[in-house]
Amino acid sequence: MSNSVKKRNIRLVIAYKGTHYAGWQIQKNAITVEATVKAAIKTVTGEDTTVYGAGRTDAGVHALGQTANFFTDSSIPAERFAPALNANLPGDIRIVASEQVSKTFHSRFCAKGKIYSYRIDTGEVYNPLFSDLAWHLRYPLNIDKMIAASRCLIGEHDFRCFMASGSSVKDTVRTIEAIDIKEQDQFIILTFKGDGFLYHMVRIIVGTLSEIGMGMREVDEMPSILALRDRLKAGKTAPAKGLIMEKVIYESDE
Amino acid sequence: MSNSVKKRNIRLVIAYKGTHYAGWQIQKNAITVEATVKAAIKTVTGEDTTVYGAGRTDAGVHALGQTANFFTDSSIPAERFAPALNANLPGDIRIVASEQVSKTFHSRFCAKGKIYSYRIDTGEVYNPLFSDLAWHLRYPLNIDKMIAASRCLIGEHDFRCFMASGSSVKDTVRTIEAIDIKEQDQFIILTFKGDGFLYHMVRIIVGTLSEIGMGMREVDEMPSILALRDRLKAGKTAPAKGLIMEKVIYESDE
Repeated sequence: MSNSVKKRNIRLVIAYKGTHYAGWQIQKNAITVEATVKAAIKTVTGEDTTVYGAGRTDAGVHALGQTANFFTDSSIPAERFAPALNANLPGDIRIVASEQVSKTFHSRFCAKGKIYSYRIDTGEVYNPLFSDLAWHLRYPLNIDKMIAASRCLIGEHDFRCFMASGSSVKDTVRTIEAIDIKEQDQFIILTFKGDGFLYHMVRIIVGTLSEIGMGMREVDEMPSILALRDRLKAGKTAPAKGLIMEKVIYESDE
Repeated sequence: MSNSVKKRNIRLVIAYKGTHYAGWQIQKNAITVEATVKAAIKTVTGEDTTVYGAGRTDAGVHALGQTANFFTDSSIPAERFAPALNANLPGDIRIVASEQVSKTFHSRFCAKGKIYSYRIDTGEVYNPLFSDLAWHLRYPLNIDKMIAASRCLIGEHDFRCFMASGSSVKDTVRTIEAIDIKEQDQFIILTFKGDGFLYHMVRIIVGTLSEIGMGMREVDEMPSILALRDRLKAGKTAPAKGLIMEKVIYESDE
């Protein structure tokens, strides 16, 4: 039975530690979060279903608020999906919430924005409790310079320079509403809120800001990096493991 | 050659994720942090040495500031031990610092105090990014009651009621200098600073405070629990994985 004629649309908020997964999206010959959630839904409902995720996180990237939806004819009360799926999922994937939504709801197309965080471990020796959750960069970072450089990214811009080369997206204009950069013990935590992010955009921005923080680039290079719209002018892509998809924002949240 | 005639005494500050270790202390047929550090020292110096730890953390307990010392005839500069040992240790154990100290220094006997933290995950669904670092207690906790009950533990007391039964320690009087309890997202983080802690003392205090937070016990039971000096009157022992040995305090720190 195709999705369109199934009776109910269920939205899931999903948290996962991405360390042992080849990312969100289903792949042949690799264990992914999407495939693992899909298998749990099959166990619970008996149905083969498509799981529509709000974003395709890469291998090693984590989530606290990934959002996905699927169609079902099951009569399980919507809020019972979370515990039922959790009973059939490995411990590093948790369904935080489940609710029934309108049949027109789509996790990706209805998203109004996303929040990502990125953690850099600046210790001379990395903290082994957070080694799967942080990029260890042993150089001292000037956080004031990073904050100053981040300011010119706020607002609507063509962020083509921060998109992974090879990505086929045509419209590269996005709006970043806020970037927060703070220190916490030996970590620098960067938080990004925007209407959407291009492929690798957060990680390339973090890589570029870190080069400014290390003094490899000047603060005032940032506007020209943005203006040139050339991936090669921006910094390196920061590693996946420091990134957390914190939240997907929908109209109902606002 | 016995330790007493070896030329130098080296102090290490050690961070580790305890998840995959059977605790600090060397055991037959189990992998421990002490044995792993001792093996790395042998690789680096060629010497069989005793590693004196400040505290014997249990299986699953973590550390950011465990402190240990060992004697050596090696001529390696003291501060080079940290990187040399790190190159020979698994990623979940890190030597944060190494320095040469007086031959009379002993990590355990010279310790003036310790700081431990304990993390409780109060989310209805636990956060999978911190599942090795937090005790998931899905009941709502009244943090104000926990703070109120913790106050009567401050100061010098006989803490026998909070010592694991079977422990052979005779003098059970200790001084707790401070207990801090704060909320951070879905976590409650408790921090304890004292001149020393009995076996399982922090975990039994956390278990007792959590029972007060859940409303299973009243705030004003705490003074009588303390006064009765009976392990059976206190609460359950909170799980090992929420505990972090944050710091060992020496006279030179003060």
